[in-house]
Amino acid sequence: MSTKLRAAIIGSTGYGGVELIRLLLTHPHVEITSVISSSSAGTPIADGYPHLNQIMTDLLDGIDVDQIRQKADVVFIAAPHGVAVELAPKLIDAGLKVIDISGDFRLKSGDVYEKWYKHKPADPAYVAKAVYGLSEVFADEVRGAELISNPGCFPTATLLGLIPLVNSGWAELSSIIIDSKSGVSGAGRGLSLSSHYSEINENFLAYKVNKHQHTPEIEQTLSRVAGEDVTVTFTTHLVPMTRGILSTMYVTLKEKHTEDEILELFRQYYEGRRFVRIRPKGKYPATKEVWGSNYCDIGVSLDERTGRLTVISVIDNVVKGAAGQAVQNLNLMMGWDEGAGLAFSPVYP
Amino acid sequence: MSTKLRAAIIGSTGYGGVELIRLLLTHPHVEITSVISSSSAGTPIADGYPHLNQIMTDLLDGIDVDQIRQKADVVFIAAPHGVAVELAPKLIDAGLKVIDISGDFRLKSGDVYEKWYKHKPADPAYVAKAVYGLSEVFADEVRGAELISNPGCFPTATLLGLIPLVNSGWAELSSIIIDSKSGVSGAGRGLSLSSHYSEINENFLAYKVNKHQHTPEIEQTLSRVAGEDVTVTFTTHLVPMTRGILSTMYVTLKEKHTEDEILELFRQYYEGRRFVRIRPKGKYPATKEVWGSNYCDIGVSLDERTGRLTVISVIDNVVKGAAGQAVQNLNLMMGWDEGAGLAFSPVYP
Amino acid sequence: MSTKLRAAIIGSTGYGGVELIRLLLTHPHVEITSVISSSSAGTPIADGYPHLNQIMTDLLDGIDVDQIRQKADVVFIAAPHGVAVELAPKLIDAGLKVIDISGDFRLKSGDVYEKWYKHKPADPAYVAKAVYGLSEVFADEVRGAELISNPGCFPTATLLGLIPLVNSGWAELSSIIIDSKSGVSGAGRGLSLSSHYSEINENFLAYKVNKHQHTPEIEQTLSRVAGEDVTVTFTTHLVPMTRGILSTMYVTLKEKHTEDEILELFRQYYEGRRFVRIRPKGKYPATKEVWGSNYCDIGVSLDERTGRLTVISVIDNVVKGAAGQAVQNLNLMMGWDEGAGLAFSPVYP
Amino acid sequence: MSTKLRAAIIGSTGYGGVELIRLLLTHPHVEITSVISSSSAGTPIADGYPHLNQIMTDLLDGIDVDQIRQKADVVFIAAPHGVAVELAPKLIDAGLKVIDISGDFRLKSGDVYEKWYKHKPADPAYVAKAVYGLSEVFADEVRGAELISNPGCFPTATLLGLIPLVNSGWAELSSIIIDSKSGVSGAGRGLSLSSHYSEINENFLAYKVNKHQHTPEIEQTLSRVAGEDVTVTFTTHLVPMTRGILSTMYVTLKEKHTEDEILELFRQYYEGRRFVRIRPKGKYPATKEVWGSNYCDIGVSLDERTGRLTVISVIDNVVKGAAGQAVQNLNLMMGWDEGAGLAFSPVYP
Repeated sequence: MSTKLRAAIIGSTGYGGVELIRLLLTHPHVEITSVISSSSAGTPIADGYPHLNQIMTDLLDGIDVDQIRQKADVVFIAAPHGVAVELAPKLIDAGLKVIDISGDFRLKSGDVYEKWYKHKPADPAYVAKAVYGLSEVFADEVRGAELISNPGCFPTATLLGLIPLVNSGWAELSSIIIDSKSGVSGAGRGLSLSSHYSEINENFLAYKVNKHQHTPEIEQTLSRVAGEDVTVTFTTHLVPMTRGILSTMYVTLKEKHTEDEILELFRQYYEGRRFVRIRPKGKYPATKEVWGSNYCDIGVSLDERTGRLTVISVIDNVVKGAAGQAVQNLNLMMGWDEGAGLAFSPVYP
Repeated sequence: MSTKLRAAIIGSTGYGGVELIRLLLTHPHVEITSVISSSSAGTPIADGYPHLNQIMTDLLDGIDVDQIRQKADVVFIAAPHGVAVELAPKLIDAGLKVIDISGDFRLKSGDVYEKWYKHKPADPAYVAKAVYGLSEVFADEVRGAELISNPGCFPTATLLGLIPLVNSGWAELSSIIIDSKSGVSGAGRGLSLSSHYSEINENFLAYKVNKHQHTPEIEQTLSRVAGEDVTVTFTTHLVPMTRGILSTMYVTLKEKHTEDEILELFRQYYEGRRFVRIRPKGKYPATKEVWGSNYCDIGVSLDERTGRLTVISVIDNVVKGAAGQAVQNLNLMMGWDEGAGLAFSPVYP
Repeated sequence: MSTKLRAAIIGSTGYGGVELIRLLLTHPHVEITSVISSSSAGTPIADGYPHLNQIMTDLLDGIDVDQIRQKADVVFIAAPHGVAVELAPKLIDAGLKVIDISGDFRLKSGDVYEKWYKHKPADPAYVAKAVYGLSEVFADEVRGAELISNPGCFPTATLLGLIPLVNSGWAELSSIIIDSKSGVSGAGRGLSLSSHYSEINENFLAYKVNKHQHTPEIEQTLSRVAGEDVTVTFTTHLVPMTRGILSTMYVTLKEKHTEDEILELFRQYYEGRRFVRIRPKGKYPATKEVWGSNYCDIGVSLDERTGRLTVISVIDNVVKGAAGQAVQNLNLMMGWDEGAGLAFSPVYP
Repeated sequence: MSTKLRAAIIGSTGYGGVELIRLLLTHPHVEITSVISSSSAGTPIADGYPHLNQIMTDLLDGIDVDQIRQKADVVFIAAPHGVAVELAPKLIDAGLKVIDISGDFRLKSGDVYEKWYKHKPADPAYVAKAVYGLSEVFADEVRGAELISNPGCFPTATLLGLIPLVNSGWAELSSIIIDSKSGVSGAGRGLSLSSHYSEINENFLAYKVNKHQHTPEIEQTLSRVAGEDVTVTFTTHLVPMTRGILSTMYVTLKEKHTEDEILELFRQYYEGRRFVRIRPKGKYPATKEVWGSNYCDIGVSLDERTGRLTVISVIDNVVKGAAGQAVQNLNLMMGWDEGAGLAFSPVYP
């Protein structure tokens, strides 16, 4: 008889799901008891992901709430948006803990959700229960939650780079510009011309300019921290690489501060939080330096000529931007060490 | 006897030099009569660049002003900065036309040059003669020049995206933020850890944050167009690809304009200039869409929520950002068709 | 009134078609008069290929033999296999010259075609007319042809590397092993998991092992040159890059020869053929050294320990392996200079 | 007081060394007590490898045998060839266990070593002691060893794919051809034009054709297994990716066997060895399917037309081809579970 927590993963055949499998397979307190895919139920997961041969021999399950309740204690939903809208309430009602990696429970306003996601929002009662799982910022709420809404990949990198400045009141809120760049895996395994190798290799482009659905998520969270409405300019770009997000953020400071003071602000804000690493003065992180890991690395540069601050933050979008932070949130929910199952180095080179 | 213009290329074994060779080989009015490399003189250029086998069988020449004078009418200098400081004046004095692709004659102030390039500036008399060869903006000056200072790669992409807004007086000059991304070939053929394949493949990073030597070049040119001092925030990033620059630029407009008005402003400014292409509303260019060509493609997005304008421009850094614009400038100097030797499509995919 | 040859391109929205456009746009004797796509008829070609903005403003035509007859003198068919089976005979009957880039007319046996392509073969009368357009080997036949069957990408690289050895009788025919590697553009613009960026980036794999449909094409041509049946072992691999094919070929020689003798054999066989370049002793070509060009570069290595010869050949699969060789064949058919429209250097880096 | 085995890593600032750090940091029975680099002694390892910030704060040690003896029980040598020639005997004499990842102790003949490595060979007495650590094949010898010579990356992938065929006597020994392809990290962190990003990105090439120093290592091991001299044809290629090796091997079988029989031969040979995974009939492994892991995956294809067998094997060159197999050998030496510290899934995508 296992004394480990039993986990089910819905959407196991997407990149987020398959990364959850990688992480949970070495987690000391968790056992994967059901890998679920509505489209491939009944087939071995290794058929579509041969890297799992002899590692995970399970057949994929279909989506069946009763079965999930019998097999699992916690459910990760790593499905496209719209799935958790229906499913998460049923799982919660069945007494399960739920960590939703999609955008379905991130936005507190149903109207805003519908506007940006073009989909009917979830039941407000469940939206109200959902805790926004930006682990380093809202750990206290995560600890008591039954439904975690895991942050988006761009918001994770961006918010961790901005919140110390907003929380301290140092940032001129109307000045915030966010220029983000992502590897292609962020678009998932679904086929599209913009993920077609010959189109994106040796190419760099902006997309959804001023229209990305992560915009309201960033604004909602910054507004909450600031205690007033924050509107940002947010541009997303596609980088010819598989994993990694880098956000370059431009902020005007209300008052003059030195680079040393700003770095100290960041260090204090993240004191004791192992997955945020602040680079020393004059150093900036590269996405490869967090590749495959749950780290978010941050560097800052103050331009004394313009008075503007440039903040640079990087994450692995599949780990800290999705599956890794989900595991981190589970650890917090369960009162385990925050780094359980995540205590490995980035892969370099 | 040839009636073509005879061209010599100093720095033929760098990426800029070798691209000049590619372009000039099919130029209808130019003949390459000397490929020059101080380090590899006496050897066939195809030894170091096997793609030129049977295409260019010339031996590399050393640097010898007398010999150049006998062999050439125009000299392209595609050497690291510092070389043209010494050499360009001698070539001018020898009666040759000179197009310098390095940064040596771009900055009108010797002090500013020395601060950013850490090198003794050129003789002010020659700096004064040098025409800044941003072809679409300063064509009239280029036409009569004997010494062209060819713009840097980042400044070319950036200035073409900003100048219509500055020239029209629409831009709030203190608001300009430039977030640029470049392929690795911009760093040249010289070996360094930051161009080492295993370090930069599957990686994205910012570098020289607030410290890039192209900053004063951008500011000097914007200031000249604006008629007042302009200071910008400028960040450069490295993209895991060989060719291409994309600049994302953020500008606050002094007064309200529609996206249609802004696009019309750009279209009028570049009317009749074949190498600048303005994308229709809602469309943004990708670097691959100008790959291997002399085009600069531009798109704009107005965020009505913040009132900020986002301008996106792309070039091939080796062509429009170096060798191609140099040829375009030669065409203007000689009164030829602006597109001579450059009238080919980008390579796609 | 134009005195240029009028060309129509069927399948203009595939990678082969769009490369034909690039090449023909600068061809001195050809004018593109119709770009044809059954799926996107009526829309500007630049909508799907923005790199053609302001370069080619044509709307795509549908497939209409009468219209093609009125608009064009020669038709390139760059469609998936099966299309030319039906279409080429009609175009020939309408008095047009046809260059088919698909596999439909390459195999002389209808049974063999049907076995490897899983499609009904073309009318044998037209198959009999079709000349296999391996330009350097069958130029004489190409000159008088009305229907050219353009070779496949793997066969082009492979056959040019093997034919001198087979033609001379030096090769032990039963010993031939071909290990080929291709960039991803060879699979075209159609979406598939094996062309999905996140799957193929940072990945290398073999596919269709002993089952690739180019096998009978290689064997048919080697058999014809040898005058007896040749069977080869042929493996194809996918390389994480867009363009380029490299074939490594292993051949046992019937009698002892030196590397110098073998290189001389190759040089003599290709004497006067500008697009095949033989590397000097001890040097081997890289795909990048022919990138964007119509060259096929070849190097050889004789292992004195085993007596086996290793031949390495490279091409750009989209140029020499498709559109470029098609233009080369047109040049031969029309009695023009073989390099018309193709006389440019590879793009490097 | 720690009860873990204490490990020192010489050459910690190379890619092999830094991967050993990644693996040993999560090893249940090992503690890294000294990271050693002759060139960077006295500086924090994270200075050159920022991904290790806050993970490994150690300063690099210089090479000092006395100090190593005090600090460590086992020493990994991940230095360029030539270093271990001098150093390994001293460390052995000091009573340490040594695992050498370089080529210095792989070849039993000093003359052969000197011919291929252009370096004076090690003392024959120590060469005699060295056990060739191809874990799945020579586990019994590894268990009792004090000096392990860890196999090269190409030999590991290649030998695991060939040995079942050679050991069974099924392979025609004179027929073996090995066509190998490697990611760029195999060349290490040392700067060279062939590892320069702009030269190798979007490029594929053969190198050291018939001249690679891993040739005698492959032949020595096959000869030992066969009980007679084996000579192979071996070609190496460079793939534009960071990690991964794929070997395609061509073997003529002495007698007729079915694909099923051959797969069964492989499955039986590797029964109980968790790190070798045999693909089912008709399936072939991709390098990405073992990325970041210690697996070697193998597939086979029998061409009934030629009677030749094609074997395809893949490894991550930095893990199974270097650091991972070194840890696996340590596990065997110490009598631990073979997978200790290596029991994680490949990273996908």
